[in-house]
Amino acid sequence: MPDPDRPNAPLEDLSADGFLGGQLTLLQPRKGYRAGIDPVLLAAAVNARPGHRVLELGCGAGQALLCLGRRVSGLDLGGVELQTPYAELARQNAAANGLAAAIWTADLACLPPDLRQQSFDHVIANPPYYRPGAHSPAQDAGRRTALGEATPLAQWIDCAARRLAPKGYLHMIQRADRLADMILAATPRLGSLEVLPLAPRVGRAAELVILRARKGGRAAFRLHAPLVLHQGAAHQRDGEDDYTAPVRAILRDGAALDWPAP
Amino acid sequence: MPDPDRPNAPLEDLSADGFLGGQLTLLQPRKGYRAGIDPVLLAAAVNARPGHRVLELGCGAGQALLCLGRRVSGLDLGGVELQTPYAELARQNAAANGLAAAIWTADLACLPPDLRQQSFDHVIANPPYYRPGAHSPAQDAGRRTALGEATPLAQWIDCAARRLAPKGYLHMIQRADRLADMILAATPRLGSLEVLPLAPRVGRAAELVILRARKGGRAAFRLHAPLVLHQGAAHQRDGEDDYTAPVRAILRDGAALDWPAP
Repeated sequence: MPDPDRPNAPLEDLSADGFLGGQLTLLQPRKGYRAGIDPVLLAAAVNARPGHRVLELGCGAGQALLCLGRRVSGLDLGGVELQTPYAELARQNAAANGLAAAIWTADLACLPPDLRQQSFDHVIANPPYYRPGAHSPAQDAGRRTALGEATPLAQWIDCAARRLAPKGYLHMIQRADRLADMILAATPRLGSLEVLPLAPRVGRAAELVILRARKGGRAAFRLHAPLVLHQGAAHQRDGEDDYTAPVRAILRDGAALDWPAP
Repeated sequence: MPDPDRPNAPLEDLSADGFLGGQLTLLQPRKGYRAGIDPVLLAAAVNARPGHRVLELGCGAGQALLCLGRRVSGLDLGGVELQTPYAELARQNAAANGLAAAIWTADLACLPPDLRQQSFDHVIANPPYYRPGAHSPAQDAGRRTALGEATPLAQWIDCAARRLAPKGYLHMIQRADRLADMILAATPRLGSLEVLPLAPRVGRAAELVILRARKGGRAAFRLHAPLVLHQGAAHQRDGEDDYTAPVRAILRDGAALDWPAP
């Protein structure tokens, strides 16, 4: 019996969108889940090196995973995606960009046995931005699943902790109002927690944070100065790209995100 | 048998120091625990109103409690202090500034029965800044106790949660690297957590945070934009007071700290 919330039919009405200043072209559904800058920033935050094994939980059409694969060559890329059509799109996107990536169509709460036997140097995730009761339902079913919290945030972190190799890193981007939940879920399974707030403008509260945590890490918790996304106190001109220099370098040149030194 | 780490002898070699632009004069030991700007910022962060009951845990010589009592008239002020000579100094300081304050000489892990029967609209605390192994021992015994962590941070928060009336607020100032510990200790006993990072300068990581939490609160976690303490990118001139305007207003004029609107 087909589940109307998880249609397995291929996605139609796709757009081909450039990322990293055109270094990557990804098919995305026009009406389903489409990447903003969040997965690009997430990918930029990961200090992966050639040969590292990387797993993205909830990889969608592969936006974060493939941005990372484009910036750092020689990675062993893996992705898990619950929704069949998005998983298929991720495979297409990897192939079309000349990147090898293993994509599992699976629920992260119940990973397939072959994946449960693997461990990774990096796990990345951009879990749905959701708080119970805080959102009106999205019209599109795929977008609804991508934006909903059928899987609790703690389960994402638990799954990441299980799949990480010793000393491996989790990077997760999420709404700032979920930071306490993330810290609660990460402790004590992961250590060396670092929080990078992403502020829309100088002096404004961060709406998003990137959490970095290390399996077996024992360093003190660190709250970094916010990374400011946009220049000035308000949006200046319509259609004008007002990103700050480090953010523009990430989005347009495929640069890495510079974490403050230890 | 006298305990060398908790001498009950009155403190000698005191200085009389002005706070809030001279609205308050407090005796402090020249060599023991002396207030920086931290207890002043803590006091400024509390949105207390006349008639409210306020308890400070670990009140020392009364710096935060009396700053708050000076800014907001008609408060019912209470303080708990482990070290007898500091508790006595807090009583002297309250009286000398014309403020009524009940000071208990007690360990917050074991409060006296009459205090355990009371509840408060606000609990404030500036617990010792300490991480095991991170500090070399202070020379002065009183300073050592004030800076040490004989009482775990979680016990401070537990004690505060017990003494708060329903809907009452905890305000705590602490090192930013203890933020995760504070969140872990506060959850689920307190809710509506808000974090105000205190950054030394624009673009620098916060070294301190103020945590606000509410007993029975159910609002989403909030990470605010940092309150920047000093102007410019670096200290300009020796002896020059380079505080930013809102911080100067707190320290010199006794103004309240403006929390961002809900």
